[in-house]
Amino acid sequence: MQVTKVALVGMGTVGTGVVRLLYDQGDRTARHAGQILWLEEVVVHDLKKGREVQLPKGLISDDLARITDNPEIKVVAHLVGGLEPARTILLQLLEAGKDVVTANKALLAEHGPELFDRARELGRSIAFDAAVAGGIPIITNIGQCFSANQIQSLRGILNGTSNFIVSQMEEQGADYAAALAEAQKRGFAEADPTMDVDGSDAAQKLAILAHLAFGARVHWTEIPRVGIDKLDPADLKYAKELGYRIKLIAVAQLQPGGLELHVSPTLVKVGTPLAEVRQAFNAISVVGDAVGPVFFHGLGAGQMPTASAVVADMIDTAVGRTQITFRTLELWSQKEAAVKMLDHDELTGRYYLRFTVEDRPGVLAEIAGVLGKHGISIASVIQHEAKGSGVNRVVPLVIMTYQAREGDARKAVEAISQLTSVKAPCVRMRVLDGTSES
Amino acid sequence: MQVTKVALVGMGTVGTGVVRLLYDQGDRTARHAGQILWLEEVVVHDLKKGREVQLPKGLISDDLARITDNPEIKVVAHLVGGLEPARTILLQLLEAGKDVVTANKALLAEHGPELFDRARELGRSIAFDAAVAGGIPIITNIGQCFSANQIQSLRGILNGTSNFIVSQMEEQGADYAAALAEAQKRGFAEADPTMDVDGSDAAQKLAILAHLAFGARVHWTEIPRVGIDKLDPADLKYAKELGYRIKLIAVAQLQPGGLELHVSPTLVKVGTPLAEVRQAFNAISVVGDAVGPVFFHGLGAGQMPTASAVVADMIDTAVGRTQITFRTLELWSQKEAAVKMLDHDELTGRYYLRFTVEDRPGVLAEIAGVLGKHGISIASVIQHEAKGSGVNRVVPLVIMTYQAREGDARKAVEAISQLTSVKAPCVRMRVLDGTSES
Repeated sequence: MQVTKVALVGMGTVGTGVVRLLYDQGDRTARHAGQILWLEEVVVHDLKKGREVQLPKGLISDDLARITDNPEIKVVAHLVGGLEPARTILLQLLEAGKDVVTANKALLAEHGPELFDRARELGRSIAFDAAVAGGIPIITNIGQCFSANQIQSLRGILNGTSNFIVSQMEEQGADYAAALAEAQKRGFAEADPTMDVDGSDAAQKLAILAHLAFGARVHWTEIPRVGIDKLDPADLKYAKELGYRIKLIAVAQLQPGGLELHVSPTLVKVGTPLAEVRQAFNAISVVGDAVGPVFFHGLGAGQMPTASAVVADMIDTAVGRTQITFRTLELWSQKEAAVKMLDHDELTGRYYLRFTVEDRPGVLAEIAGVLGKHGISIASVIQHEAKGSGVNRVVPLVIMTYQAREGDARKAVEAISQLTSVKAPCVRMRVLDGTSES
Repeated sequence: MQVTKVALVGMGTVGTGVVRLLYDQGDRTARHAGQILWLEEVVVHDLKKGREVQLPKGLISDDLARITDNPEIKVVAHLVGGLEPARTILLQLLEAGKDVVTANKALLAEHGPELFDRARELGRSIAFDAAVAGGIPIITNIGQCFSANQIQSLRGILNGTSNFIVSQMEEQGADYAAALAEAQKRGFAEADPTMDVDGSDAAQKLAILAHLAFGARVHWTEIPRVGIDKLDPADLKYAKELGYRIKLIAVAQLQPGGLELHVSPTLVKVGTPLAEVRQAFNAISVVGDAVGPVFFHGLGAGQMPTASAVVADMIDTAVGRTQITFRTLELWSQKEAAVKMLDHDELTGRYYLRFTVEDRPGVLAEIAGVLGKHGISIASVIQHEAKGSGVNRVVPLVIMTYQAREGDARKAVEAISQLTSVKAPCVRMRVLDGTSES
């Protein structure tokens, strides 16, 4: 049986999972790959750190040169987080003639053009199915399985931490802080969860997917994004009353004027697949013009799901499939963008609006008037009788609109915020009815 | 740009879809493949038949030799239904040195060993992602994306016709005959729907998946299967009352004693992904030991979804990915089966039982006694007050069991059928609570 020597840089959570699959399950991997993937070197930053899996002394070191100087090592899993030294290490591996597998989405979202250009110049490949949605093989599915399609839309729950927090808030009635604490306790959120909960992580993944599916050349920071860190339990309650759940949804959708791209807490109709995604699961709904709607659901993070994706990429690279795909797709190349990003104000959609208003006659008419002036029609209203009493009593007013322009909705809400009858910041969220979904 | 010459045998519904993608969308396909797939020949059985898509005269013929004698044609989509002449044509294409893409699942389920052996001998490949679940790329996902896993279970809704009929019965309250007529009217069922509604089609697909995922060497006729053609609307009603939907579920699951394999109408817990699959959609829930549960949902049949899978396979073959996978997987080889099929009586599961019994004291005790003697515990009972009156009044008695052996459940129901108080054939269905699913 043919043997391909492989190596690992980084042995954190995911790296340990990869070692488990390659080292403990080597026979099985060989059977599925049709060849032996021989783990030749593991290079880590800190040799003294405790490891879940014990490796023989000769196998693990803190010397990258043991990989870069060994021409027999063909495939290297790059499992180093952050931007530096991750970027430098990845470039060193390419320069040394290695094909690389990475799970570092932030690195690709930030330095994709540089890394992919260098790989192309050197005749090397970079595989990255583990970088987006962990165990869901969305990169291979879009790049290979749906290659006969023009992808029309991608809608995804791409951040498990956010989904866990929102699920906790919804199911347990917890507020944001308590739900975050629970997520941290259970290992679904890091000590500093900022990038997860403010929408940045989902925007990085969306930028990679939009690149792959639409040939968009968008830096993730250009994607309008709102996180779930300001989410009020009251809105979860009203959403439920209206037949919706709130989810952090990343959208990339072809429109006549360009590509719609955004990440935001969105009301998703109960009973549609994305609304049913619970806990830390990820999901992606893809619509292709030939294949129609295809929905994927799985674990978007975690040691073994991510390691599964890394080892699948290592096998693909060892047998030669990755190199073919890499040559074909021309990712992050200097080619002109196939599609421009749509001006955010030009999007259309339905909106959920919540205003905190004085409990007196004429307020609803006043707000409806402002919406009407901006061309926005009201589909439904919730205003319950106020409890308690008092002259300065405020009540929540919830409005679902019909289709409206994003720019109009934004301006209308800005105008309404200026009214003296409005007593707290307004809430505005997009609504997904799932009409074009599976 | 590199050009690969390709051809088509058969231009029925799917073939026409493939022509649309290759001929009308050639530029796009070239962009995604990194090369031009040049449609050189289309060979059909009956040249006089009307076609939805008009092809230039020189391109379409009824002469297979125009493909087999042309060494420039590398990849051929084989879109001929049935067993013969489909088998002979596929062998002729292989002998002529072509790599073949097929959507004919019945042919693979019946003649897989012969066809794959011949392809291997000749150094050729057969791609078949379109043969199972149409637009859901389950073959590539299992054979490639989950290659780092030991697959532990596959549970699928693999027959869209059956799912459409059951959905109609549930949602519209239609009986089987009316729902079938509606399915035929809408093009979801053929004039002779036998193979679809009796579980054979799902068993053929399950045999292919079990082969791929578990190395099982099982002929589809060995798979115990029950169809939906005897389904009584009463059971849909009781299932709903118990919080379940009935779906035709195909199961392949590793058990300590071997591989559990069967196709049958099954009660699936409402809220779990498989229960929410409506209309003619297909869905598959895969559990891998590393990746965990991954759920796929999409269109399992139809012109463009199936054509999408065929053209993706043609691209994979033109660029060389298929050949690598084909060599690796050793499908339908003479290798010993990796896992034996479990004796059907040894399965365990929960059961839904419906008896039609005399409305008199002691009947429930009698039936519960027989179940108890066979080691089967009752989890819940539904027996509503009988309507109307009369001495020979019969009432339905619905029982949900706890975990029990299939053999015990079968024998208990056989014994209960012999009781004089039981007045009609008993209904027995498996129950899926979705505990190990996504």
